[in-house]
Amino acid sequence: MTDTPDPIRPEARAPRGFADRRGPEVAQERRIVRQVSEVYERWGFEALETGAFEYADALGKFLPDADRPNEGVFALQDDDEQWMALRYDHTAPLARFAAQSWETLPKPYRRYAFGPVWRNEKPGPGRFREFVQCDADTVGSDRPEADAEIIAMACEGLQAAGLAEGQAVVRVSNRKLFDGLFEAGGITDPIQRLTALRAIDKFDRLGWEGVAQLLGEGRLDDSGDYTKGANLPLGVASTIEAFLGSASEGTRAETLDAIARSGGLGAAGEAALEELAGIDRALTAMRVDQVTVRFDPTIVRGLEYYTGAVFEAELLLDTTDDKGRPVRFGSIGGGGRYDDLVARFTGQSTPATGFSFGVSRLASALRAAGRAGEVARGPVVVIVFSQDDMQSYLDAVSELRAAGIAAELYLGRAGMKAQMKYADRRNAPAAVMLGGDEIAAGQVTIKDLDAGRAAAAGLADNEAWKAARPGQQTVARADLVSTIRAIIEASSTI
Amino acid sequence: MTDTPDPIRPEARAPRGFADRRGPEVAQERRIVRQVSEVYERWGFEALETGAFEYADALGKFLPDADRPNEGVFALQDDDEQWMALRYDHTAPLARFAAQSWETLPKPYRRYAFGPVWRNEKPGPGRFREFVQCDADTVGSDRPEADAEIIAMACEGLQAAGLAEGQAVVRVSNRKLFDGLFEAGGITDPIQRLTALRAIDKFDRLGWEGVAQLLGEGRLDDSGDYTKGANLPLGVASTIEAFLGSASEGTRAETLDAIARSGGLGAAGEAALEELAGIDRALTAMRVDQVTVRFDPTIVRGLEYYTGAVFEAELLLDTTDDKGRPVRFGSIGGGGRYDDLVARFTGQSTPATGFSFGVSRLASALRAAGRAGEVARGPVVVIVFSQDDMQSYLDAVSELRAAGIAAELYLGRAGMKAQMKYADRRNAPAAVMLGGDEIAAGQVTIKDLDAGRAAAAGLADNEAWKAARPGQQTVARADLVSTIRAIIEASSTI
Repeated sequence: MTDTPDPIRPEARAPRGFADRRGPEVAQERRIVRQVSEVYERWGFEALETGAFEYADALGKFLPDADRPNEGVFALQDDDEQWMALRYDHTAPLARFAAQSWETLPKPYRRYAFGPVWRNEKPGPGRFREFVQCDADTVGSDRPEADAEIIAMACEGLQAAGLAEGQAVVRVSNRKLFDGLFEAGGITDPIQRLTALRAIDKFDRLGWEGVAQLLGEGRLDDSGDYTKGANLPLGVASTIEAFLGSASEGTRAETLDAIARSGGLGAAGEAALEELAGIDRALTAMRVDQVTVRFDPTIVRGLEYYTGAVFEAELLLDTTDDKGRPVRFGSIGGGGRYDDLVARFTGQSTPATGFSFGVSRLASALRAAGRAGEVARGPVVVIVFSQDDMQSYLDAVSELRAAGIAAELYLGRAGMKAQMKYADRRNAPAAVMLGGDEIAAGQVTIKDLDAGRAAAAGLADNEAWKAARPGQQTVARADLVSTIRAIIEASSTI
Repeated sequence: MTDTPDPIRPEARAPRGFADRRGPEVAQERRIVRQVSEVYERWGFEALETGAFEYADALGKFLPDADRPNEGVFALQDDDEQWMALRYDHTAPLARFAAQSWETLPKPYRRYAFGPVWRNEKPGPGRFREFVQCDADTVGSDRPEADAEIIAMACEGLQAAGLAEGQAVVRVSNRKLFDGLFEAGGITDPIQRLTALRAIDKFDRLGWEGVAQLLGEGRLDDSGDYTKGANLPLGVASTIEAFLGSASEGTRAETLDAIARSGGLGAAGEAALEELAGIDRALTAMRVDQVTVRFDPTIVRGLEYYTGAVFEAELLLDTTDDKGRPVRFGSIGGGGRYDDLVARFTGQSTPATGFSFGVSRLASALRAAGRAGEVARGPVVVIVFSQDDMQSYLDAVSELRAAGIAAELYLGRAGMKAQMKYADRRNAPAAVMLGGDEIAAGQVTIKDLDAGRAAAAGLADNEAWKAARPGQQTVARADLVSTIRAIIEASSTI
């Protein structure tokens, strides 16, 4: 180790909001993506990968100032002066791709995609500026079966990723229900509608009382912040109260009836109920039960984007945080019907529907629920004693690998004790020792590091267990692979 | 289809140099990455994923003008005024991560990574600004076994991805050989050394005559462009000539002998030969043959970066381009030893060595060589005749999926003929028809679309084949899965 001459050194740190992820975490997220992809492909969805950048106008964000990067996205000017930005979801790139390739695509076009998306927002604990999303969408079908298929497939995907039955529920509603409520109540101002929708979106958190204030004059919250209200007429607010009150834990058909009875839905609302009835028929034909997918009028989701059905997937896991307090995981993803996104490019209305979930968020939920799946094992570590016996070490490593067992030679310059510590940090199931005496005798010494870990964790307190896991044993060199395999198999059943 | 009111529409196009990749291409690249990852993990390398952005100073690029994005990278200023840039390789982020996490890492630290890298360069045909690279590196080992392991593992990885034995060669040299040549020749000016190295790097393309001009006064190329030379003394140039002339197709040991005999290597050059001899011993102990990995003094690679051994993997595939002309694929990747990159952050010299290859480049080479592997099949398409029979269609789809066969229901609104065309565009092996009569009779009609494609391709010109593949058949509904499975299996043996 020598000092470099240059005294000006950059600090080794990742930009704020960007995480480094190591082996086990990476393995878990890859497994989720692989399992979900298998389901999506079995349902006839084709993989699509678009580039990280889209032109800013294609992303549909308003550029307030041509000299300034976009709010909320990572944007920069290309050398031809055009603004481009990293994608902030997979839907905008899909809409651009579908519009661009429409003539050559099989229609309807089913595609799935996963990969990082980027948000230029204030990072915080557990809040990243880059995270992996996994999406599936059908473009070019206005059928309720298309919505139902997306919902049913999302449920199967989440289960394939490790969620047990009953650990997730998808709640479904329809954006047009609100269009109908506003229309029938004479609310035409788009800003007033948006303010009201944002208020209703908080029903889950604030309850009716808080929402009522936000639909009326406004609301002062506990921290003293005042939020201006939508100033809806009292009559409209009470129609909305009845509408939200029609939520129930009944069957989908019962919920539809309750919504219809709440009244004041107008023409758009009645059409929305028809669409939901079609989705219900398709879900039932797909044998999707009444508990996994519910109708719920309190779902708002994706205010500016959706034009019909909206879905929200909620985790029902009982988990605890670092301090042992119960944690509700809440929303893991969602989606809905967006019939106008492709039309932004083509001018032709093109029906589309999709579902998206956060892969890291699902991964951490599964970890918290103890359903993360098999822990990735470290490699078997072959200890280095002498440069002269390198051939024996390398042969052992290569024999283990040929048997499908991850294995490596220690490549540092440290002594025996440090090598054992290294093997332990690598989460190695075993360390292989080929000293000069062992090589001469045609033997090998194998240290069962899993047994050591189990003993340390108090799992090895009976004599039978100790007899079965001797900790360290010297066996014939020919028995190397079978001995290691026995250790790995014994550990997987602890 | 209705027109949207907004007349100002963005054009649907991806930014220049960014590609959209669809199903089969995505599947092939994922398969390569999966197969190589399996090998790397079996060799004890741990996955690492870093964020897309690094601080510009961590990437080690010089910022010529604080108001201007970086040359060659996609850079932007964060809201705290710090410049950050998308990674242009996986090595710089690894160096940053290793420096940041050194205390907590098992040492030596073996990691592999794959994912997109971004280059802000002029795009062109086949030249993208975003592409996937796959890297493996060992940080913290100065042993020649570490270099040999990276090389041997790269060879195994390329074969796992589909290259046959003899379709790739890794050529190995050592940067210090040139240090030694320059030292012994009294060339101390770093610019002169760099110019000379760049000239030598063209040996492969220009031969000795062209290199000699570039080592001397300069060279006028065929297009009339003049490149200024390194102005080396004639004596040094002829030492280099002898050095490059020592390249041979002999064993690694023979090449080392020939290089040693060429003379004028200086102290650094002699040390480099020692290192190469150590790598040769380790490669031989790893049973790496003399044809797959060669020593080659003409390899320069990575001028500013490498401090010791350098590797270059070259494809030896015989392929042809669109016009039927023979194409030489050339370099697919490379790497080497870079002992100073972590020291940029820590001030402590930290030995490191690694190998990187371009996933898309390997994918297109494998395609050109007819070794792309199995083509991903489209799903079986179930035709829709009547809304009333939706339950029968959905049951067929779900039965096929449960049997592990990708299947989908047609979800558009078009008639029978368009649905068949759709199924064909989806590369469906078969279409499933459940008309009212068939449902009533407990039957199903299955159209063998693969047979149709084979007939169209002239593969079905004998009677026995036609008898075995009837094209369209009506079978008992209970035989749906077995009939479809027979079609898929028959097709995989065509």
